[in-house]
This record gives sequence, C-alpha cells and structure tokens, in this order.
Amino acid sequence: MPVQVDVGELVDRAREGQPRAIARLISLVEDAHPQLREVAEALTPHTGNAQVIGLTGPPGVGKSTSTSMLLSALREEGKRIGVLAIDPSSPFTGGALLGDRIRMSEHATDTGVFIRSMATRGHLGGLAWATPQAVRVLDAAGFDVVLVETVGVGQSEVDVVRLADTTVVLLAPGMGDGIQAAKAGVLEIADVFVVNKADRDGAETTVRELKQMISFGRKEIRGPSWRQPIVRTVAAANEGVGDVVRALREHREWLDARGELARRRIARASSEVEAIAVARLRAELVDLRGGDRLPELARRVVDRELDPYAAAETLIADLRG
Amino acid sequence: MPVQVDVGELVDRAREGQPRAIARLISLVEDAHPQLREVAEALTPHTGNAQVIGLTGPPGVGKSTSTSMLLSALREEGKRIGVLAIDPSSPFTGGALLGDRIRMSEHATDTGVFIRSMATRGHLGGLAWATPQAVRVLDAAGFDVVLVETVGVGQSEVDVVRLADTTVVLLAPGMGDGIQAAKAGVLEIADVFVVNKADRDGAETTVRELKQMISFGRKEIRGPSWRQPIVRTVAAANEGVGDVVRALREHREWLDARGELARRRIARASSEVEAIAVARLRAELVDLRGGDRLPELARRVVDRELDPYAAAETLIADLRG
Repeated sequence: MPVQVDVGELVDRAREGQPRAIARLISLVEDAHPQLREVAEALTPHTGNAQVIGLTGPPGVGKSTSTSMLLSALREEGKRIGVLAIDPSSPFTGGALLGDRIRMSEHATDTGVFIRSMATRGHLGGLAWATPQAVRVLDAAGFDVVLVETVGVGQSEVDVVRLADTTVVLLAPGMGDGIQAAKAGVLEIADVFVVNKADRDGAETTVRELKQMISFGRKEIRGPSWRQPIVRTVAAANEGVGDVVRALREHREWLDARGELARRRIARASSEVEAIAVARLRAELVDLRGGDRLPELARRVVDRELDPYAAAETLIADLRG
Repeated sequence: MPVQVDVGELVDRAREGQPRAIARLISLVEDAHPQLREVAEALTPHTGNAQVIGLTGPPGVGKSTSTSMLLSALREEGKRIGVLAIDPSSPFTGGALLGDRIRMSEHATDTGVFIRSMATRGHLGGLAWATPQAVRVLDAAGFDVVLVETVGVGQSEVDVVRLADTTVVLLAPGMGDGIQAAKAGVLEIADVFVVNKADRDGAETTVRELKQMISFGRKEIRGPSWRQPIVRTVAAANEGVGDVVRALREHREWLDARGELARRRIARASSEVEAIAVARLRAELVDLRGGDRLPELARRVVDRELDPYAAAETLIADLRG
C-alpha cells in the first residue's frame, strides 16, 4: 500500500531546493505512485523555465568526466543544475553507471547540483514514460539547466535524449569503428558534437570523418539548418569546456530565433502525453476481466485457433465495449 | 505505396524452405506491411513446433563464436535452425553486430540455417512487437530450433529474450565487475549459464560467484524450481558444446514435464497480442483529428494550461468518443 503523500507540501519543499523533496518526487514518478496525477498538476504551473540538455555517447568516451567538467563550468556561471543519468539497466551493465555516479561525488556537497540515476527496469517504454516527468520535476524545482545523460545504447535511450532542447553527442578517437558505425542515427540526434580526448592520436581523423558525415547528412535532413559544431575537449584536463558552453549557448540562441525551441518542447510534451495515455490503455488491456482476458486469448493463439492480430482486435473491442 | 504481396504463395515457398521467401516475410513484419494481418493468419496453422532458445550476454563474451558452435552441434543432430540476431541499433553500436554476422558466414551456404539480424530502430517497443512475429515466421517455416540472440543491453532486449522457451546467459572470466554488476536480472532470465573462455584465468572465480548468486537468488524466486546449470565452454576451440546441448535438452524436458512450456508460450503470445493491440491504439491516438489533436494538447501542456495527465485523459476520451 503506497503511503499517502502531502503533494502540496512536497512540491513547496522541492521548490525551496530541498534535495530530499526533489528525490522523493522523482521516486513517485519512477514508482508510478497513485498520486502522480496530483503531482503533475501541482508541478505544471512552475514548469517551462529550465534548459534541457541531452548528453550521450558510447561507453568509454569519457562521458562522466565530461559531464562533471560541464557541471563545474555551468556552476561558475551561477546556474543550478539537475542531472538525470539514464541507466540502461541491463543486468550486465547496471554497475558501471553507479561507478560514474560515485566519480561525480565532487559535486555531492554542492546544493546547486542535484544528481539522480534513473533505471529502465520495468515495463517496456517505462523510461519514455518516466523521464519527461522527472525532467518536469527538476524544471519545476527551479533548476536552470537539466542535463539528461545516457550511455547511448538502445533506441529507447536515444529517443529519450531527443526530448532535450539541445543534444550533445560525445565521441573519442581510437574507438575502433565507432564513427563508421555511427551512421545516420547520430546525425539525427546531435546538435553539438564533442570529440573528447582530443590530445590523443587519431583525434583529427575522428574530426575529419565527422565533418564528412555532417556534410553528407546535410543533404538528407530537412528543416531549418543548424550547422552542427564539432568541439574538441580533453575533459580530464578541463580543456575545451569554454567551447562547449559557447556551442550550447549558440544553439539555444538559434532555437529561440527560429521558433524551434517551442517546436521541440511541443514534441517533448507530445511524447509525454502519448506515453501516459498508452500506459493507461495498456494497463486497461491487461486488466480486462480481472486480468483473465489476455491470457485466455493468448492460449487460443498458442492453440492456433486465432492469429495474434485477431486476438488483438478482440481485446481492443472488449476495451471499447 | 507498399507492393501487394501474394501471401499464400509466399508462405508456401517459406514452408518449402526458400530463404528469400522467409526473408521477405520477416521484412514484411519489420516494415509493418499492410498485409501483416493476412500474413499472421496464413502462418498460424503451421506454428507451435519450433523450440525457441534465447541467447544473451554482455559484449566481448564470445557470443558470436558460441552461437556458431551451437549451430554446428545442432546441425549435426540434423536440426534446421533459424537465428534472429537482435541488434540494439544504437547509432554507436550498429556496426558491431554486422561484423558478428559476417563471422558466422561459415553457415551461409547451409540451407538448414537461416540467419537474420533485426534492428530496434523505429518506434518505442518496435522490437517487442516485431520479434515474436519473426519467431512465428521461422516457426511456421519449419525450423526445429529458433535461436534469438541479443547483445544484452537494455531492458527491451532482455524482455525479448524472456520470450524464449529456454534462455542461455553467456558470461566470461575477466570481464571486470561483470558478475557483481549482473545482479538479480540475470538470475531472472537465465535457464542455463554458460561460462565461456573457461580456459582463462578467473574462470573458476566466475563459476563460484555465479553459484553463490544462484543459491542466494533461489530463496527469492517463486515457482517450480529448476536448478540453473553452469556449463563451461571454450567456444573458440569447440570445447564444452556437448554439455550446452545436454543442458538445453534437459531444460526442455523439465519444461515439458512441468507444463511450464505451455505457460511460457502463453506468456509469449500474451506479450505479442498485447504489443499488437497497444501499437494499434497508439497509432489511433497519434492519428486523432488527422494528427492534430496530440500536438494541440501538447501545446496546452507547454503553455501550462493542462498537466500531461489531464491531456492524456482528454486524448483517451477522444479515442473512445
């Protein structure tokens, strides 16, 4: 039985910047708490102010160090920052990101920084459902920047990053066929490329390949043109962070000037509303006839009496009926 | 405009074992072809005979070599085998599995083996939707064994593997904190553990840790008890494959004896029917009022007139209305 929560008080405390209240609100989202509807209603008037930055890249690229470097630079500008670290939660990789969190502990005592890992465990699409709502919590809590970091494996993580106002894709030299494998997907999601470990052999090759990809991809991509910058960094030595911050600012200005920011935020809210509606409908389908209807139809599919489409149609008819 | 397909003829040719017809049917599934319903109807009478084996493990564990070894052993028993290689399709990792496919080319000229990569690109949950239907294609085409291989990153891939009759989890020594990080997720999905590269240092440590995990996890897991075996292999030297085949056979016998096979297949069909129904409802939600309704509600969420739950409720009411 979930505990009854005083939502109004919790939101007030989150807006005062109390980390425990913020953490509690995100937990309510992750756990799909029954009072979630009430939480969303209380948060909504306070949303819309945060700049949402997505940060992704393959494992080993120095993502944690880069995030930490970017956090420090944005803190120096006086900004309050919320970080959502999306954990792909494979049973195999679950531990790695926890390590990242620990490495970021230099920010642990800074009340202007809030760091939270989110797992993708649970039903399919759970992350698509919970992430925008967690962003909403941090936005309402008054953070100037919300950084959504993902390890960049799996389509769902990529989709989540696409919810950002600005998406940074991190790459590094010497990652084997990383760039070749990157294909069009990266071009679609990246607003800013960062080549980290730029002091290493092969950095210029990586930059050159990236430039070729960008100029090739340009012909394919419709819509208002933004020239994706390629920034070189050595995050471990804090080099190049100024260029990253500048690229982020320029992209934000471009978004504003083109009306693109509004378009992206409507797209983000569309995904969020769609995910909530689909989750609700899915729950109703599964619960039909006290949960007996779906397995009953599935049994008829296994027995070859029905094909799965006919079974799905029957299920939908029952939902409507 | 999709090409009109003679479904009856295509299914006939697939059942004769023609690889091009089988490949075409799987493409129809991946592309959500308008005649998919017709395809499913034509396949259904021929399904239910294949043994579905899931194979997963972290990158670097020797998955491709192990799959290849297992293929050869099952072929020697005269079995026809269909392989679905689930590609997590990160923009970063897209290339790696392609390499795996090429390495498996020793089976390319064997008509008793059909290998197909499937990507997770596209809408969220696309893999959950397409994979069971692709398994259905291979099952109807008369393969004795359908091997579903995934790289094991991301919850959706894990969920897909759980659709198998028997799931093999591959591990290897010297993978850093692989086992420690593996946590409960692996215990839930594994029916058979394979420790590959068993000739390397640390193999016995890996086996011992696994045994501890299993005995610890046993207390947690409900349901009929199956003692998950741990098989040691050196896939590159073709060592231990007989033990893997034996473990698979024993698990299959256990499934049959306990009525567990039927239960797993009903669970698989439930996921499939649910995924088809949810995809249909999602499409209807997105298409409401010629596609204008969702962005209109999303705009009101961005403008703070509505919270996302209220918007989702309005959307569902429209769907029903």
